[in-house]
Amino acid sequence: MRKIWYLVVFIFLLLGCSNDVAKSDEKSNGNVYEPIAGHKDLHQPPVPIEYERISENEVNITMTAQITDINIERHITYKAWTFNGEAPGPLVVVNEGDIINFTLKNLDPIIPHSMDFHAVHASPKRDFADVMPNEEGTFRYQANYPGVFMYHCGTPSVLAHIANGMHGVILVMPKDGYPTDHEIDREFVLIQNEWYKYNDLDDMLNGVPSQVVFSAKALREGDINTNGTTYDLKDTPLEAKVGEKIRMYVNNVGPNEISSFHVVGTVLDDVYVDGNPYNHFKGLQTVILPASGGAVVEFTVKEPGTYPIVTHQFNHAEKGAVALLVVSE
Amino acid sequence: MRKIWYLVVFIFLLLGCSNDVAKSDEKSNGNVYEPIAGHKDLHQPPVPIEYERISENEVNITMTAQITDINIERHITYKAWTFNGEAPGPLVVVNEGDIINFTLKNLDPIIPHSMDFHAVHASPKRDFADVMPNEEGTFRYQANYPGVFMYHCGTPSVLAHIANGMHGVILVMPKDGYPTDHEIDREFVLIQNEWYKYNDLDDMLNGVPSQVVFSAKALREGDINTNGTTYDLKDTPLEAKVGEKIRMYVNNVGPNEISSFHVVGTVLDDVYVDGNPYNHFKGLQTVILPASGGAVVEFTVKEPGTYPIVTHQFNHAEKGAVALLVVSE
Amino acid sequence: MRKIWYLVVFIFLLLGCSNDVAKSDEKSNGNVYEPIAGHKDLHQPPVPIEYERISENEVNITMTAQITDINIERHITYKAWTFNGEAPGPLVVVNEGDIINFTLKNLDPIIPHSMDFHAVHASPKRDFADVMPNEEGTFRYQANYPGVFMYHCGTPSVLAHIANGMHGVILVMPKDGYPTDHEIDREFVLIQNEWYKYNDLDDMLNGVPSQVVFSAKALREGDINTNGTTYDLKDTPLEAKVGEKIRMYVNNVGPNEISSFHVVGTVLDDVYVDGNPYNHFKGLQTVILPASGGAVVEFTVKEPGTYPIVTHQFNHAEKGAVALLVVSE
Repeated sequence: MRKIWYLVVFIFLLLGCSNDVAKSDEKSNGNVYEPIAGHKDLHQPPVPIEYERISENEVNITMTAQITDINIERHITYKAWTFNGEAPGPLVVVNEGDIINFTLKNLDPIIPHSMDFHAVHASPKRDFADVMPNEEGTFRYQANYPGVFMYHCGTPSVLAHIANGMHGVILVMPKDGYPTDHEIDREFVLIQNEWYKYNDLDDMLNGVPSQVVFSAKALREGDINTNGTTYDLKDTPLEAKVGEKIRMYVNNVGPNEISSFHVVGTVLDDVYVDGNPYNHFKGLQTVILPASGGAVVEFTVKEPGTYPIVTHQFNHAEKGAVALLVVSE
Repeated sequence: MRKIWYLVVFIFLLLGCSNDVAKSDEKSNGNVYEPIAGHKDLHQPPVPIEYERISENEVNITMTAQITDINIERHITYKAWTFNGEAPGPLVVVNEGDIINFTLKNLDPIIPHSMDFHAVHASPKRDFADVMPNEEGTFRYQANYPGVFMYHCGTPSVLAHIANGMHGVILVMPKDGYPTDHEIDREFVLIQNEWYKYNDLDDMLNGVPSQVVFSAKALREGDINTNGTTYDLKDTPLEAKVGEKIRMYVNNVGPNEISSFHVVGTVLDDVYVDGNPYNHFKGLQTVILPASGGAVVEFTVKEPGTYPIVTHQFNHAEKGAVALLVVSE
Repeated sequence: MRKIWYLVVFIFLLLGCSNDVAKSDEKSNGNVYEPIAGHKDLHQPPVPIEYERISENEVNITMTAQITDINIERHITYKAWTFNGEAPGPLVVVNEGDIINFTLKNLDPIIPHSMDFHAVHASPKRDFADVMPNEEGTFRYQANYPGVFMYHCGTPSVLAHIANGMHGVILVMPKDGYPTDHEIDREFVLIQNEWYKYNDLDDMLNGVPSQVVFSAKALREGDINTNGTTYDLKDTPLEAKVGEKIRMYVNNVGPNEISSFHVVGTVLDDVYVDGNPYNHFKGLQTVILPASGGAVVEFTVKEPGTYPIVTHQFNHAEKGAVALLVVSE
């Protein structure tokens, strides 16, 4: 149906206002769709996540839902729906068994938002409930399984909320660690997500992604922390030393596509599917990640050089999903 | 090429019979494509599957191929090609090692149909042979592996036969059970399938699904049993009690798409890929199911509430692939 | 955007030169896009791969990058970018632990090419470096993990190089074999790849494949060896005897799509993901292969007859991805 409407629009444009053709062009290609009314001139600067451990097995976490301009390509800004002004949102790290007291402050003046942590057992409607504009809500649940879990806004249309940027990763560290912990020299967190024509639900439903991207999230103070862009992890590569065994906590937050995660120039020594130590594979060239699927992947870099990290679905790599790892002596 | 023809059609419509635009609209959006000639006014009421155990290791099963109107959305009827008037077809359950004597009665007056059980060892051309219109065929084979297997019509175009509704699930129960059998309180069978523009092979080949849906199939007398619709498992949710461990036998019958199977508000305790007890994963947030892939997934519901079951490829969830599980105290 | 240009082109065609409509038709459907200038009249006959074992743990391999016409459908020729005039390229087999001295001779007069073996540890920019037109380059690296690995040209646009035909498989045989080695009667190598509108990067990025195909690669002298075509493995099926256990080394080289690998009429007894003996599954109906993912799959053929091998994403099977295995008594 949409194609037919493009036609109607196009034919009128052809007969009349040739001036606007460029605009129509931009719309269909360049992510300059109109924001909805209440978001139009809104840019809420990133608010830091609050994290406090209040006992051995309990943490308090406060996050915001907010509308923030982020760059997704070098010259394309996206008025993203975000957690804390980042897309993907900030990394959350807890321990297996932790109770989480979670507060969501919704700074969005017009749309309700919510939080669905894949890591917890919860009553969805109650514990992942909508928080109204300019309100806040507090929830309590437990993270019982170790792994690399997705989180996301669960407010309908869930597709629109995720595709517009409301996704991220919560790591739940295994009580007994991973069998390969003692071999690891360096750790990163890497997330894959897609971007669609700006805020265009029809394209999110039926189209192909405009960009497919990686982002890195800081696991430790000083680590690189980026949004999901086509260029950040090319301009500022991840770094390691020759001979090191690298661990990456990875998740494909979608919203729609599968990932074929691959590191050029090496083979994955150990892979734990969804980050659970029980789900162990060896010697993989590529890990398949379902939409919202995670993994712990470990590999050794034996030579100095620049290692591209890609989804081996190469149309997606061409659309941006390439991160670089520079290995020096 | 099809796009070009849409253009031709559209331009003529624009110049002339504006009356028909709505029809073209419906066609491309609303599944009102024309049935083929011999099916046009045909609606064969569902015929029950016949199932008889004739010895400890042998069963007789009789099914029909038939043309039956089913609802796929609340106001959209699809003149489906079906097994026994259901789409997906009725659940078949046998035991590991069973010999199956299978009879297919083809009630379709114009098209041959056939049966390909993924669970059996067979000579495809002989044992999955076409049964001509108004004829029947009997076949014999053995189910040697436990699991959650797809069945489908294997007559060319196989794509058209599956996409029009001729798919279902055969469970083969493991001789020695699953290691987690004693923990299970409740069991369901859930199937994911796609619908395309009505009977439109070009759309099935190159398009995106119009609907992606779940259906439940009755494992025991009195269980809910539905077709693949966008609404049935929202209107009539599955039911469980707080604290129970639930097992679901799931299969993604396609015909084309991958599934990222996920239950909101919980983590999958145990997963057996394709339903074989040997293929054991723990603590998964999401299971990837290839086209025709199955799994046994088990999870615990710790809180009362409503748990959505989705494919986390959220464009497909938006198109219908959400089932609800209501957990009461 | 491309859709809009189709419209412009189409409307001019409609008003004027109706003669050219067929051509536009062919372009969008039939893979007759124009080759780039320096390739236009080029057809370089296949050059055999050179393979020499120079010590117990070291091999010399020489391959070519070259432009060669291959048939992909019965009446469609594709001016492929190839390794050694085959697409997929020739099979490479080494042993776990082997050092590989690899030489790439680039016979393409205008475009640089390169080689990325997924089986090795390497410094990508140095060891997978571009080889300029009419030059050659020699590289040295080690294959440390057993498995069924993809190789491909890694020169940007990598998507264009892979999609135009520069992909293949390197088997790394496990030092200690597979646990099921003694059960195997017959072995094949099978590769899935996609073809897009000829040399059309936009279609490769955003379109659907024109053909999805299987090819067989000769593991032993006299074995069938084909390009990725819609018909070769239907015209000349693979062959086996009743009761045999068959092993297939499979890889889905993409460039973009996932595979749901399935053999009609049997169940996969044993599957080793990416071909590593550690990653063992049993009793699978279907194996999911990410883009560039491999597997060793083993199954028993208990009845005489013709067994279709497919990706169960049936739109891809309809587009060509069906190979036949004939089993005789």
